[in-house]
Amino acid sequence: MAARESAPPAPNAGRRSERSRRAIYDAALALVVEVGYPRTTIEGIAARAGVGKQTIYRWWPSKADVLMEAFLDLAERSAREAGEQPYSIPDTGDLAADLKAVLRATVDELQDPAFDAPSRALAAEGLVNEELGRQYVAKLLEPSLQLYVERLRSAQKAGHVRPDVDPRIALELFVSPLAQRWLQYTGPISHDYTDTLVDYALYGLAPRPQA
Amino acid sequence: MAARESAPPAPNAGRRSERSRRAIYDAALALVVEVGYPRTTIEGIAARAGVGKQTIYRWWPSKADVLMEAFLDLAERSAREAGEQPYSIPDTGDLAADLKAVLRATVDELQDPAFDAPSRALAAEGLVNEELGRQYVAKLLEPSLQLYVERLRSAQKAGHVRPDVDPRIALELFVSPLAQRWLQYTGPISHDYTDTLVDYALYGLAPRPQA
Repeated sequence: MAARESAPPAPNAGRRSERSRRAIYDAALALVVEVGYPRTTIEGIAARAGVGKQTIYRWWPSKADVLMEAFLDLAERSAREAGEQPYSIPDTGDLAADLKAVLRATVDELQDPAFDAPSRALAAEGLVNEELGRQYVAKLLEPSLQLYVERLRSAQKAGHVRPDVDPRIALELFVSPLAQRWLQYTGPISHDYTDTLVDYALYGLAPRPQA
Repeated sequence: MAARESAPPAPNAGRRSERSRRAIYDAALALVVEVGYPRTTIEGIAARAGVGKQTIYRWWPSKADVLMEAFLDLAERSAREAGEQPYSIPDTGDLAADLKAVLRATVDELQDPAFDAPSRALAAEGLVNEELGRQYVAKLLEPSLQLYVERLRSAQKAGHVRPDVDPRIALELFVSPLAQRWLQYTGPISHDYTDTLVDYALYGLAPRPQA
């Protein structure tokens, strides 16, 4: 569920500001886990990162913006560490295999504590803070869902998905169950589980007539 | 997504204690919306309900228990007001029609502010408080999901769902997308939307061979 959004706002890209940016991201993610979103402040992030708060204000307009950038960066690093190409879905011509591969990688990412705790804290706040929730969706979630839309459109062109199917709804049949199990602890997640979701979604629950 | 759990712990069921119980539920739901779960206390609920806190402790062991019961009661009242039979899924023999009817009623319930705000507050806390999250699932969510399991098993017996399908996973193809759109503001919810989910889940995204 990594997003492929814009690069961070380009500070003067010297080594020192890169180090500051990394420290600010780490501080923001750690604080949102420890004290929650409402009590995370620019001042708190600055103190923990060892930078002046003006440094943060110069690069980001608000704490929500710092956190969104920190998450984009986290998701990208997490994908690279897992040996995945971030922000892409393969198109080998085998839709089931491609979806299974991406969802297996997502399961691994969701099970990584470095990703789980801050994502969970931000998602929780987004449930009761509609403005933040909508930002979270627009900046982090929807861009990665659009990758599924593109993959499903390509499958429609290849005749592997019915032409009348709306790809933006279709992707939810396998993405949303995984998201709910992970976020709400409604069940275990595993590669077998996401493989099953893909098979059910593609071939349907009802018996299929023989060709 | 109403649950069909146990009746409230039976106080001496006179009119006065029924009135107190109702006042306690209302106070608990209002407080969790206004100040959030962590700052909702038994003392606060008692003060707002105009009862002694011993009255609450006599009936419920913790604030989590009061809130769970308040939600069960809310879901039941909400279903009855909508003219629905709470805690049931019809079995007319037409699986698609039965699932669509229940999901349409769920959409109506989720769009009711009396249900939306407290449910959202409790769900948000459940994301970051694993113990509460697991209670929420066990007491409120899973019992209603089991109704779908039963309906899908009945459909398997009737030959309308493939025998190798796991009903507990299958239900997530239409329940989880609705839950995610509602909770995370990832998209609008409507009767058309849930009808579409049911059709996609039953018949699959891939083209079906002609019978």
